[in-house]
Amino acid sequence: MPDHVLAIVARPSLEAPAAPDASDWRFVDPASPQLTALDLGATRGDGIFETLSVNHGRAQALDHHLRRFARSAAMLDLPAPDLATWRAVILAAVAELDVPGEAFVKIVMTRGIEYGDRPTGWAYGSVSPDFTRERSDGVSVVLLDRGYRHDVERTSPWLLAGAKTLSYAVNRAVAREAARRGADDVVFVSSDGIVLEGPTSTVVYRRGDGLFSPGTGLGILDGTTQANVFRWAEGLGMSTAFELTTPDILRSADAAWLVSSVRLAAPVRAIDGVPLPVDREFTDTMNGWLAALDN
Amino acid sequence: MPDHVLAIVARPSLEAPAAPDASDWRFVDPASPQLTALDLGATRGDGIFETLSVNHGRAQALDHHLRRFARSAAMLDLPAPDLATWRAVILAAVAELDVPGEAFVKIVMTRGIEYGDRPTGWAYGSVSPDFTRERSDGVSVVLLDRGYRHDVERTSPWLLAGAKTLSYAVNRAVAREAARRGADDVVFVSSDGIVLEGPTSTVVYRRGDGLFSPGTGLGILDGTTQANVFRWAEGLGMSTAFELTTPDILRSADAAWLVSSVRLAAPVRAIDGVPLPVDREFTDTMNGWLAALDN
Repeated sequence: MPDHVLAIVARPSLEAPAAPDASDWRFVDPASPQLTALDLGATRGDGIFETLSVNHGRAQALDHHLRRFARSAAMLDLPAPDLATWRAVILAAVAELDVPGEAFVKIVMTRGIEYGDRPTGWAYGSVSPDFTRERSDGVSVVLLDRGYRHDVERTSPWLLAGAKTLSYAVNRAVAREAARRGADDVVFVSSDGIVLEGPTSTVVYRRGDGLFSPGTGLGILDGTTQANVFRWAEGLGMSTAFELTTPDILRSADAAWLVSSVRLAAPVRAIDGVPLPVDREFTDTMNGWLAALDN
Repeated sequence: MPDHVLAIVARPSLEAPAAPDASDWRFVDPASPQLTALDLGATRGDGIFETLSVNHGRAQALDHHLRRFARSAAMLDLPAPDLATWRAVILAAVAELDVPGEAFVKIVMTRGIEYGDRPTGWAYGSVSPDFTRERSDGVSVVLLDRGYRHDVERTSPWLLAGAKTLSYAVNRAVAREAARRGADDVVFVSSDGIVLEGPTSTVVYRRGDGLFSPGTGLGILDGTTQANVFRWAEGLGMSTAFELTTPDILRSADAAWLVSSVRLAAPVRAIDGVPLPVDREFTDTMNGWLAALDN
C-alpha cells in the first residue's frame, strides 16, 4: 500500500455544484497535476485546510477538526463543507494509506477557479516526519510580533484571524526568521503584548498544578491537540484554564509546550535564548497518551 | 488567436534547478491542470505575483513590475527570479494574446513543491474586464482596519507587508466586507490611523495643485500606476508628494482615486457613505494618458 495518497473531492460542499465526476472522490497520482493555474487556492491563498494525525490507522480528533474546518469556511464566506463527504474521504485516505507508524491527512478546500461556481477539494495523506528529537529534547523558540492586536477577531473579522486559511506565507516567513535567529520555532505575540500561538501549534504551559493556554477569541485557532492535552491533565487531577498570557507569564512558567496534531507536544526548552526547564517524564507521559488516542 | 493564454515557465530562477523541459517556457491549455496539490502556492499561499496591463499589444510599466517582482521574491527569501526569462515570457504571452482592446498578463512564482528544490512559475494572459463604468462614475469605498501599525515593514519584516504575495485571502475578504456595507472597494487604514492602500490599488488624491499618495515604507506596495500618474501630473506642472495620510486628510481632498494596472484610475465618489467630488474631465484625461502609454 502507498505511503502517500491524494484524493480529489468532486463535491466538497452541497451548496455548490459538483465536478462532473462519477464518484464523490477518487484517488489520483499525488505527483500528477490536479489544479489549474486559475484556482484561487493557488493565485490568492483563498481557501482553508486542516491537518489530522493518524495513529494506529485512526484519524485523531476528527470531529474537532471537521468543526474547525466548517468554522474556517464560514469565516471566509465559503460554501459550507459537506462534512459527511469530508469524513468519508478522510477515512478512505486513512484506510488506503495504512502505514505502520504515524501518518497525517491534510484536507483542503479552495474557492475554486476565479468566476467559477464550485470549490476545489482534496485530501492528501502521508507518512509523518520523525519528531522524536523535538518531542524529547524540545524546541527553542523566539517571540515574534504578529502585527495584530489581541482583539482583532472581534474588531476586524475581515482579517480572518482565527481561520485556518491557505494564506500562510507569514507562518512560513516567521519560521525562516526563527532559523536566522538560531531558533527552532516561533511564538506569536500580539502588537499589544499578549502571547498568541505558534505558526502551526498552540501554546500550553504549566504553573504549579495547573495547565494553561492563551485560549480563544484572540484571533488564534481553537487547538485540537490543546483540547486533548487539557482533557488528559484533568484526568490526572490537574486544573486547566485559559488566561490572557503575557510574555512574562510564559517565561516564568514551570514548563511550556507547543502542541499540534502531527508533532504532538514539543517542550519549549528556551525562549529568546533563555532556557526554560523541560520536564521529560511529564512530556513523555503526555505524548504517550496523545499517541495512544483512538479518536 | 486566443483571448487567454497560459505559459508554464520551466526555469523561473537561475538560482534553482530547471524543470525537465525542452524549452524555457511553453504554452499550455489554461483549462487543463498544471499544478500538483503539493505546490506550496496552493497549500500555503507561498509565492509572489505581478499583474501587468497590456495596451496596444504592449506590456505597461514592465521594468517597474519586474523590479517589484524581484523585491517581493527577496522579501520572501525566494530564489531571485530570472528577469530576462520573465520579460521574455511576458512578451511572448502578449504577442500570443494579441487582443484588440485591453488585456493583462499575470506572472506567478511559487516556492514549488514542499521539500522540492525549484520554484514553480507561470504567466497567464487574458482580455481585461470592462472597467468603463468604474473609470467614469467612480467607486464608493469603505475604510477598513488592516490590523498592522504603519511601521511594521520596518519593525516586523516577517509579516511580509509590502510584498505582493499569493497569501491574499484578506484582500478578498475585505472586498466581501465592502459589498456587505454596500460599497465597491476598500481603503486600508493602519491600526494607528494612517491611510495605506486599496487591496488591489494605490491611493492618490489631489489637494489644490498637488497630487499626493501615502508613499512607501508603510508596508504597502510601491505603485506602478501611481508612479505613472505622478509622472503625468508633473508633466502638467502639478506638484507631487508622498505624505503620511490620515483619514481626515483623505476625506478633505479635492478628489481621490484608486489607481491600479488594469482598472487604471477609478475616482473615489464616496468614503464610508460620504460623497467626495469626482472630477470627470481630469480623470478622463488621466486615464486617456495611462491608456496611451507605450511602455
